[in-house]
Amino acid sequence: MNKMTTTTDTMITPDTFSVPQLDRSAASQIQQRIDQKTKPPGALGQLESLAHQLALVLNQSTDNKPSATYDRIDAIKPTILVFAGDHGIAEEGISIAPSAVTQQMVLNFLHGGAAINCFCRSFNIELTVIDAGILLPVDHPKLIQQSLGLGTANFAKQPAMTMAQVVRGIHYGRNIAHQQVEHGHNVLGFGEMGIGNTSSASAIMAALLTTSAEDCVGRGTGIDDSAFNKKIKLIEQALQLHRDKLDCPLDILASVGGFEIAQMVGAMLGAAEKQTIILVDGFIATAAAMLAIQICPATKDYMVFCHQSNEQGHQRMLTHLQVRGLLSLDLRLGEGTGAALAIPLLQSAISFYNDMASFESAGVEAV
Amino acid sequence: MNKMTTTTDTMITPDTFSVPQLDRSAASQIQQRIDQKTKPPGALGQLESLAHQLALVLNQSTDNKPSATYDRIDAIKPTILVFAGDHGIAEEGISIAPSAVTQQMVLNFLHGGAAINCFCRSFNIELTVIDAGILLPVDHPKLIQQSLGLGTANFAKQPAMTMAQVVRGIHYGRNIAHQQVEHGHNVLGFGEMGIGNTSSASAIMAALLTTSAEDCVGRGTGIDDSAFNKKIKLIEQALQLHRDKLDCPLDILASVGGFEIAQMVGAMLGAAEKQTIILVDGFIATAAAMLAIQICPATKDYMVFCHQSNEQGHQRMLTHLQVRGLLSLDLRLGEGTGAALAIPLLQSAISFYNDMASFESAGVEAV
Repeated sequence: MNKMTTTTDTMITPDTFSVPQLDRSAASQIQQRIDQKTKPPGALGQLESLAHQLALVLNQSTDNKPSATYDRIDAIKPTILVFAGDHGIAEEGISIAPSAVTQQMVLNFLHGGAAINCFCRSFNIELTVIDAGILLPVDHPKLIQQSLGLGTANFAKQPAMTMAQVVRGIHYGRNIAHQQVEHGHNVLGFGEMGIGNTSSASAIMAALLTTSAEDCVGRGTGIDDSAFNKKIKLIEQALQLHRDKLDCPLDILASVGGFEIAQMVGAMLGAAEKQTIILVDGFIATAAAMLAIQICPATKDYMVFCHQSNEQGHQRMLTHLQVRGLLSLDLRLGEGTGAALAIPLLQSAISFYNDMASFESAGVEAV
Repeated sequence: MNKMTTTTDTMITPDTFSVPQLDRSAASQIQQRIDQKTKPPGALGQLESLAHQLALVLNQSTDNKPSATYDRIDAIKPTILVFAGDHGIAEEGISIAPSAVTQQMVLNFLHGGAAINCFCRSFNIELTVIDAGILLPVDHPKLIQQSLGLGTANFAKQPAMTMAQVVRGIHYGRNIAHQQVEHGHNVLGFGEMGIGNTSSASAIMAALLTTSAEDCVGRGTGIDDSAFNKKIKLIEQALQLHRDKLDCPLDILASVGGFEIAQMVGAMLGAAEKQTIILVDGFIATAAAMLAIQICPATKDYMVFCHQSNEQGHQRMLTHLQVRGLLSLDLRLGEGTGAALAIPLLQSAISFYNDMASFESAGVEAV
């Protein structure tokens, strides 16, 4: 997977993105700070590794902040981007709802009625909704219009999209991530909405892990046995159909990807370029994360995996990435809900790192 | 386990506590409301069952609120009570720290420097610290003084406490829970601090589940192999020593319990009497919860199990209770930290229940 694309389109190369290697020179200083807190070593479990990562990422020296210190972690200013796109494969009847529901849910996001809206309000998270390519477009002042088309083609029959669409999608995603950073956000969460997109994510996973469709297909948001078996069969067929075009991330996206997934890949890379925290939601966002990591491995250091979903493939993805989700609440909704629910855990990690007493300051015997 | 105590002390009987059966007559109404939200059925996973429980418990008809409706869940007003107590068994050298650390950590709580303080500040949770019986008392205006003694006796050699202490502890706990409800709290979280209390909790668990010490003993906050094996052996010996006094909750408390555990048992029962939500933290709080449930089974309906700790016995306890923890972050600190970290999840459950659009209101096709 060294080459980035097998096509003549050379707009994206390994050099397109300049994701800085995470500077780990302060790692022992940070760990020492954590270990001096009034608790047995490691007793705050995953919050400790989270605090460590936040301290490393958010305290990087940048142009704006040339002299990094590690005494405190900066306050987070989180935002969640929900990318919506439709999928030609939905015409095969393997989803629980028709593609029209993507549009209806986008409107629901814009009107503030969806689960992600509730969680963002609860935790003061900004929310941006992006039309990455839904079937039935929406005209709304709050919707970011960067559609790559009216849904992808049915990847069981032909490539989901052209390489030009992939490249444009990645640039769109990158740009919006950069804009969010310019607006002051240092934690970018990624969610999605798109009827049919678990099929696309399963196919991406199968291609990246070179494993069977059966290992990668879940029930999405809740299909029956017959649709489940059909889904496996269709993805198996698609993997056969595109077998010569599955050996690099951009070709995988063109063959079996989704418009919202392509834009998420670009946005994750763009967020990593700006050294922000990337909140990865569930199954579909993790498929995008895997592609982004394939393009620029350093991107992974900026990622927090927020939720381990019920989709059977998701555990396997996380194992492959050697990461663990913060939450496992059996969510299977997408929309960035897992990312939003992880925000209080980030705040908790920062709060103990910044404000908890040390053994010395509290006069507690070190354990 | 029908009798409550084998002693002549009859101050606590099954009738002492009047824990109302949870009125489930609105269960289908509540479920219908959840299922009409714009998401596939069950897609919010554990948050859905949590919302269901919160709607049932917090919307009960009470004297103050005679006509319950289930359209909204009332806002939560959470408080966490941290009960501190010392354990004679700590003299055996099976803990990571000496008993003096209990006092030092109590001071740390009172000065706002511990992990639980940070999390309570982050999530606007009130915190109350109770001296249930620490070895080295503390004089501080914010500390609730209801000590049952200067640490329990070493239960490897003799009963941890007298039945009079158990009964007094349970009443102390009950009273403080009632006070918290009078102060307007409807969510009571329970935490603890006490060097040696994982040994006590392990022995309680072994007695309640009639299983071996080995199945119940963990590393506490981090002991080495030698201390670990000694801990198992000591608890095995203690279970032998007290074998005729382990067949009812109060006798178990007297034989191998702790002052802070006895008060937590009473406080959980008191919270259930007032139909508030009970947040159960980790291993030690779950041991108290099991005793409270044994005394009044209806108490369980009011409990939310917040964290599944790394202590090997904890998973077994939760399985025995047929419940699942909300979080599993590898915390092994106690102090009510798991309970505090669960508060944002309660808020999220309430937020989607109260504010998420229905399929009808949002114009989304039901799935």
